[in-house]
Amino acid sequence: MHIYPLTVYYEDTDAQGVVYYANYLKFFERARTELLRTIGYNQKDLMDEGSIFIVREAKINFKKPTYLDQNIEVHTQIEKVGKVTFDFSQKVLEDGDVLSCKALIKCGCISVSNFKPKALPEELFNGMKTLLE
Amino acid sequence: MHIYPLTVYYEDTDAQGVVYYANYLKFFERARTELLRTIGYNQKDLMDEGSIFIVREAKINFKKPTYLDQNIEVHTQIEKVGKVTFDFSQKVLEDGDVLSCKALIKCGCISVSNFKPKALPEELFNGMKTLLE
Amino acid sequence: MHIYPLTVYYEDTDAQGVVYYANYLKFFERARTELLRTIGYNQKDLMDEGSIFIVREAKINFKKPTYLDQNIEVHTQIEKVGKVTFDFSQKVLEDGDVLSCKALIKCGCISVSNFKPKALPEELFNGMKTLLE
Amino acid sequence: MHIYPLTVYYEDTDAQGVVYYANYLKFFERARTELLRTIGYNQKDLMDEGSIFIVREAKINFKKPTYLDQNIEVHTQIEKVGKVTFDFSQKVLEDGDVLSCKALIKCGCISVSNFKPKALPEELFNGMKTLLE
Repeated sequence: MHIYPLTVYYEDTDAQGVVYYANYLKFFERARTELLRTIGYNQKDLMDEGSIFIVREAKINFKKPTYLDQNIEVHTQIEKVGKVTFDFSQKVLEDGDVLSCKALIKCGCISVSNFKPKALPEELFNGMKTLLE
Repeated sequence: MHIYPLTVYYEDTDAQGVVYYANYLKFFERARTELLRTIGYNQKDLMDEGSIFIVREAKINFKKPTYLDQNIEVHTQIEKVGKVTFDFSQKVLEDGDVLSCKALIKCGCISVSNFKPKALPEELFNGMKTLLE
Repeated sequence: MHIYPLTVYYEDTDAQGVVYYANYLKFFERARTELLRTIGYNQKDLMDEGSIFIVREAKINFKKPTYLDQNIEVHTQIEKVGKVTFDFSQKVLEDGDVLSCKALIKCGCISVSNFKPKALPEELFNGMKTLLE
Repeated sequence: MHIYPLTVYYEDTDAQGVVYYANYLKFFERARTELLRTIGYNQKDLMDEGSIFIVREAKINFKKPTYLDQNIEVHTQIEKVGKVTFDFSQKVLEDGDVLSCKALIKCGCISVSNFKPKALPEELFNGMKTLLE
């Protein structure tokens, strides 16, 4: 389980006074990036080598609003690692255990030149495997 | 079926050269807002009267990337209208019929003062009913 | 004078209930893009040909907040056209004449390969000249 | 001088492959918020007490693009503190000393109920004074 802490700033909120629903997807991506960085993944390098990661599917349940200035945590777990695709379950938690939002995010690796599916670089594939529980 | 046309600007894209995944949720919300406006709904007025709409659940399938400067359409259909909750199916289409992204968005009405579920104003409930196929 | 109308959506606002200050820069860019489109400019095509436009300097005065659901207009005027750089004055107006925000935006043309300054394509340069009052 | 470190994520970039110009204003606001937090300022509390801070004017010079995955720092200095208004100079630096972007941001305190200018809470005023060099 990877934990990414963050603070809610004005930019994240909307006129309802809480985090705008699309912005949870930004929080989730920041957390996935940081998780993958723990196994040596760097998006810019990967892109320069011809591979990029995309989201194929996202299912999000919004449970409880999050407010300006709140300190929250994004909890991320890799759920499945295939040759080309990989899935994450992610949660936004307030005060360590109050669920604000949870998601299942299905990703994939594609070629930067033609946007076609492409096998994960072997090192990354193996690294992700080690993150499965 | 409600059709909302839009153009992809720099703000919508990311370093992959295509629309950033979270931004489709912005497009979907703009389209829902415009659809509800056709039956006299106005978010600011509704908020001043004590009700706001929230998204409870979103399931999105990303099929094909959308590029800078593309003219796209968001197609929106109300799928279900309950006393408190209501669902939309939405699609982003390129060139009128190429599917970029589709979503099922489950919404609800809550009280602006305590964020608890609240029945839809009757007029809006009736208006939404007329939008069901 | 080019006029670009738009509506304020939830995504544009923050917890103060008004348009978030950085988002006016998004509105301004949408308007500049549409203005340049009137003289045949297309950012994606230009990028494919090796040139991109950047903002070198922005000076913005925020005069009056803009609210959710408001219909506003962005008024854009080209102020100066040089071989490599060009300036815009832009305003956000409510109800046609109430000033919400105004800006001076200084732009430039650079090479997409090395991000160095580059002369404007001649056709665009001439087109922009016609937009000077 | 207050230093706020951050990483550039996909959400911050655009199809030019670099940070989108409006997003520097988000970085600047995050940094101002964190600076003010060091003297006990909390935006949500302040809002609940009836005061909010706004930006009155922003002047930004964009010097050098910032890329995906880069670690950057926002350097913030309070330049002036008045009864109602206060100014910041801010910079985005790469590798500790390469200037990406700099700004002068003029802020003010207003009443949350009528958006009229309002004196800074005395404690905050005094706290800000201690941050002047």
